[in-house]
Amino acid sequence: MSRKAPRRTAERIQEAALALFNRYGEPNVSTTQIAGELGISPGNLYYHYPAKDGLVNALFEQYEQALAGLLPAAGDVRDVEGAWFFMHSLIERIWNHRFLYRDLNLLLSRNRRLEAGIQQALHDQTVALSTVLARLQGSGALQIEAEDAASLATSQVVLLSYWLSFEYALDPRHALEPEGMQAAGLRGAGQALGLLLPYLVPAQQAYLRHLLRAYEPPKATEKPGAPHE
Amino acid sequence: MSRKAPRRTAERIQEAALALFNRYGEPNVSTTQIAGELGISPGNLYYHYPAKDGLVNALFEQYEQALAGLLPAAGDVRDVEGAWFFMHSLIERIWNHRFLYRDLNLLLSRNRRLEAGIQQALHDQTVALSTVLARLQGSGALQIEAEDAASLATSQVVLLSYWLSFEYALDPRHALEPEGMQAAGLRGAGQALGLLLPYLVPAQQAYLRHLLRAYEPPKATEKPGAPHE
Repeated sequence: MSRKAPRRTAERIQEAALALFNRYGEPNVSTTQIAGELGISPGNLYYHYPAKDGLVNALFEQYEQALAGLLPAAGDVRDVEGAWFFMHSLIERIWNHRFLYRDLNLLLSRNRRLEAGIQQALHDQTVALSTVLARLQGSGALQIEAEDAASLATSQVVLLSYWLSFEYALDPRHALEPEGMQAAGLRGAGQALGLLLPYLVPAQQAYLRHLLRAYEPPKATEKPGAPHE
Repeated sequence: MSRKAPRRTAERIQEAALALFNRYGEPNVSTTQIAGELGISPGNLYYHYPAKDGLVNALFEQYEQALAGLLPAAGDVRDVEGAWFFMHSLIERIWNHRFLYRDLNLLLSRNRRLEAGIQQALHDQTVALSTVLARLQGSGALQIEAEDAASLATSQVVLLSYWLSFEYALDPRHALEPEGMQAAGLRGAGQALGLLLPYLVPAQQAYLRHLLRAYEPPKATEKPGAPHE
C-alpha cells in the first residue's frame, strides 16, 4: 500500500487541478490554491509537480488519451445517428478538459509541449471529421464535393473547439459552471451537426432536424439588444 | 498646441498598446513595456491610464466604433460580391483589435465593461450576418429556411471571432505576426463565406467558388501528421 500512496496523491492533485482550472481558468488558479483544496501542504504538491506546467501537461495527456480512444470510431459512422453520437462524444471530451481551450492562446505562449500537442489534436480531429463525412457519403447519407468536405470538417473543428468560449463570452457568470455542462455540450454538438443539413439526403436531413429540435435545450439567458431583424 | 499635447500622448499610448497587445497578447505586456516602447516615463503613462484595464477599455471602444461604422452596411448586401466585401471588412476590424479575442476569456474574468460590451458586439454581428442572409434571400441569391439562417449566422460569427485563435493554435510562432495579416484574414473570411455555398443559387455559387479559389492564399505551414484520409 505504501508504494501506491504517491501515485494516488498525484492522481488526486490532477483531479483537483482539473476541476479548478475548468471552473476558474488556469491563469487564475495557483498551485497553493490546489494544495489548499486538497488539504495538503504546498511542499507536498511541489514534490509531485515542481512546476504548474507539469500539471498542465499531465492533464493534456489525459485529453490526448481521451481523444485517441474516440477518434477511430469516426470510421464506423454510417448515418446521422452515428454522426450525432460521435459529435456528442467529441464535445464531451473537449468539455472535460475545457480549460485547455479557455485560455489556449496564453497557455501556448509559454508551453512548447502543449504547442505541438494541440496542433496534433486539432489535426487529428479534422481528419476524424473528414472521415465521418467520407463515411456518410459512402453510405449514401449525404452528397458533398471533396473540396467542400475539407472546408466543412475544418469549420466543424473550429465550432467544437471554441463553442464553449463563445458561450462563456455570451454569459461569463454561468456558462462554464458544471451544471451547464449538458446544455452547452448539446448546443455545441448541434451547431457542428447543423452544418451537415444542406448536404444530407432528404430522409437523413429530416431525421437530423428531428434530433436537433428534440434535444434543443432552453437558452441559458436572453441575448441583449434588439431582436434579430 | 499645449492643450492638445495630452490628447496626442493618450493617442500614442493607445497605438503602442494596441500594437504590443496584438503581437504578444495583453496578459504578456506590462504598462512599463508600453511606456518603454514610447520612450515616456511610467509616471507619464500612469497619468493618462492609471490602470491597464482603462487602456483595454479605450481600445475596446475603438473596436465598437469600427463595428458600428460597418454593420449597417449589411442591409445593402444583395449578392455574393457584396457578402464577400462585407465579410472581409468585418474580419479586418476583428484583426485590427485581435488581442480582444486572443485572450478573451481571461480578459472577461476581470473586466465588467468588456463583459457587457463583448456580449453586445457578438450579438450585433449575429444580427448583421442574419441581415446579410435575409438580403441575399430577398434578392434571389440564395434559398434557406429561417431556422437554418439563424444557426448559420451564429456559426459564421463563431468562425470569424475565433479563426485567428485557431490559426494561432496551428502555428503560434508566425500566425499573428503583422505580415500574416492579409492571408489569415482571407482564410477566415473565406471559411465563413464557404458556409453559404450549399444555399446559393447556381450562378452565385459558381461565382463564390471562383472568388474562393482565386484568393486562396498559400498555407503558412504544412499541417503535422498523416495526410487526410
